[in-house]
Amino acid sequence: MAVAISRRGEVEPFHAMDILAEANRLKALGTPVISMAVGQPSDPAPQRVRDAAAAALKIGRIGYTDALGLAELRQAISAHYTEHYRIEVPVSRIAVTTGSSAAFNLAFLAMFDPGDRVAIAAPGYPAYRNIMGALGLDVVEIELDGAAYLHAEHLREAHRQRPLKGVLFASPANPTGAVVPPGDLKALVDAARELGIAVISDEIYHRLAYGAPDVTALAYDDDVTVINSFSKFYCMTGWRIGWMVLPERLVRPVERIAQSLYISAPELSQVAAIEAFNVTDELEVIKARYAWNRELLAKRLPELGFSFAAPMDGAFYAFCDVSRLTNDSMEFARRMLAEAHVAATPGRDFDTLAGHRTMRFSYAGSHDDMIEAMDRIERWLR
Amino acid sequence: MAVAISRRGEVEPFHAMDILAEANRLKALGTPVISMAVGQPSDPAPQRVRDAAAAALKIGRIGYTDALGLAELRQAISAHYTEHYRIEVPVSRIAVTTGSSAAFNLAFLAMFDPGDRVAIAAPGYPAYRNIMGALGLDVVEIELDGAAYLHAEHLREAHRQRPLKGVLFASPANPTGAVVPPGDLKALVDAARELGIAVISDEIYHRLAYGAPDVTALAYDDDVTVINSFSKFYCMTGWRIGWMVLPERLVRPVERIAQSLYISAPELSQVAAIEAFNVTDELEVIKARYAWNRELLAKRLPELGFSFAAPMDGAFYAFCDVSRLTNDSMEFARRMLAEAHVAATPGRDFDTLAGHRTMRFSYAGSHDDMIEAMDRIERWLR
Repeated sequence: MAVAISRRGEVEPFHAMDILAEANRLKALGTPVISMAVGQPSDPAPQRVRDAAAAALKIGRIGYTDALGLAELRQAISAHYTEHYRIEVPVSRIAVTTGSSAAFNLAFLAMFDPGDRVAIAAPGYPAYRNIMGALGLDVVEIELDGAAYLHAEHLREAHRQRPLKGVLFASPANPTGAVVPPGDLKALVDAARELGIAVISDEIYHRLAYGAPDVTALAYDDDVTVINSFSKFYCMTGWRIGWMVLPERLVRPVERIAQSLYISAPELSQVAAIEAFNVTDELEVIKARYAWNRELLAKRLPELGFSFAAPMDGAFYAFCDVSRLTNDSMEFARRMLAEAHVAATPGRDFDTLAGHRTMRFSYAGSHDDMIEAMDRIERWLR
Repeated sequence: MAVAISRRGEVEPFHAMDILAEANRLKALGTPVISMAVGQPSDPAPQRVRDAAAAALKIGRIGYTDALGLAELRQAISAHYTEHYRIEVPVSRIAVTTGSSAAFNLAFLAMFDPGDRVAIAAPGYPAYRNIMGALGLDVVEIELDGAAYLHAEHLREAHRQRPLKGVLFASPANPTGAVVPPGDLKALVDAARELGIAVISDEIYHRLAYGAPDVTALAYDDDVTVINSFSKFYCMTGWRIGWMVLPERLVRPVERIAQSLYISAPELSQVAAIEAFNVTDELEVIKARYAWNRELLAKRLPELGFSFAAPMDGAFYAFCDVSRLTNDSMEFARRMLAEAHVAATPGRDFDTLAGHRTMRFSYAGSHDDMIEAMDRIERWLR
């Protein structure tokens, strides 16, 4: 039989996921791996969230929902914008998605056609580039080259070279942890408006900034597409549940595509997520532990030869320059997993150009694991 | 702000989902709607399946899994091929997906590039056409024109006109319920092999044929891509969990794309699905009720003026010619929902050409609901 294999399927692997698979394989063999590779809280979702799912399981019927999600969850998300950001977002503009993964795919499909130039920052979340590539977009990677985040000037410069159709940025950012201050965020949104560039703002690490309060891009323009998720602050990674806030005119296109591509997000996760906004006190305690881990890493990583390639202002990542230790972070990560049993992600995931000399450590694990991981790496490097 | 709206996002709505949204809106207002619009069992997943999810909820950590799925679930799926089909499928060729929706998207992305000609039957599941369209494939809709299913000769004829890169067919089929007999299935697979056409076999309605035992396309060639799901026979629609069996060479491309596009299927659903193969006795009882509903509809629908446009050999759909009642099945479905409070799907979903004179009724609901729905339609038509 002919096996068709597409050219567009030739995307880079998501190396963090390959490392996760290898870590899982080692764990299954009894190796006590500490995983700092994947951006995943070690805490379960709060009890009330899980209780809501358990109650739905008892009733039993778990079915397709409307493609845009359960009305009650969309209302809860709308209320979250009022409470957390003091911004009114009508329920009609909220789409519940199967994690932010689905939200990115839907945004790219609904907004852009093949060949459209869309800018992202490098380093950045690899799935941006990989999904855009698979969908035929012309991905314009803007090398930050020492800057902590994308500035309006970066955008103007890239647009000058050849007009951009869209831009996607994140704050707090993965892998750098950088937070865009309100003034610079406003300048970025204003520049995009002026240049006619559509904006996607990835806000999935909101509520995980350690210095400044969250500012959503929606504060500066109603017509940005915002992507968020219950995975990070709300500790619901494996539930696969997120959301988008859409410009009015994009709601129906996104709904139509979602009907065919996803049908709906998992209902149990939707039911559970409704409770997530009611347990933020508990979640703030978990965030306080990340802050504690962050302090530890801020001290220990430089001692071990990892210097910071970015400030750790938000998210739960330490993004390090490893050039004092290796010139091949991929091989280094492989060996560190095999020999020290600590999994971290090679920079290649985030930056095809300069990633050979960077690495990302996730500090969303337990504090004891962080201590142990640093000790293991220290012994291993000797 | 510039709002980018793509051309490729201009896919048809999935009308069944629009009808579902409208039915949900009416239900929320207290209207006692009977839904025969969406292919969704009215039974919950069996207790043991839900118990497995409840146990995982207690332990609490629900995280990302390997992109290809939990090893234990992949093993269970492999064992299912041995038990149910007497076919050996190595675990390495099985990918767990976020419903068959994700499986279709992954197959199309990994196998085909924009412009590739891929054949499907009309009438057929609308998401095939819509996803393919959004991904830039050249969708070749082969009008069955009275034939119950796609034959090898259809394939040869379409390929003669201009070479095909791929073909996707389903047995039992949605919306027709048609089952392709083993000889014709073999002829179809053989023809594809001979012509160099890659095959995707949609087997999500397996275990729901009323006459003949299931035959998988894998029986005739190892290199077909098979798509299946826990949604239908296993009553797990809203859990969003399915799987693919892949040709060896497609495993890694699918894994790479899945890492970025989905990360992984919902873990809770994966854990629960492992139990699904252990409760098939219970599920067979549910299937027996579908058979009972099917008998009722086979009698009642023609009495009401709906004649069958296809045999009801499998799945849980009655696909009817409504041209004695209306020349606009879309408007007819809308009015039937608004006035008789019975939701069914207009044929337009399945066949852009001839769909104005067909309609699909799902009989996966309770027997009482089927009786009541037929009575309501009878009163309404008078």
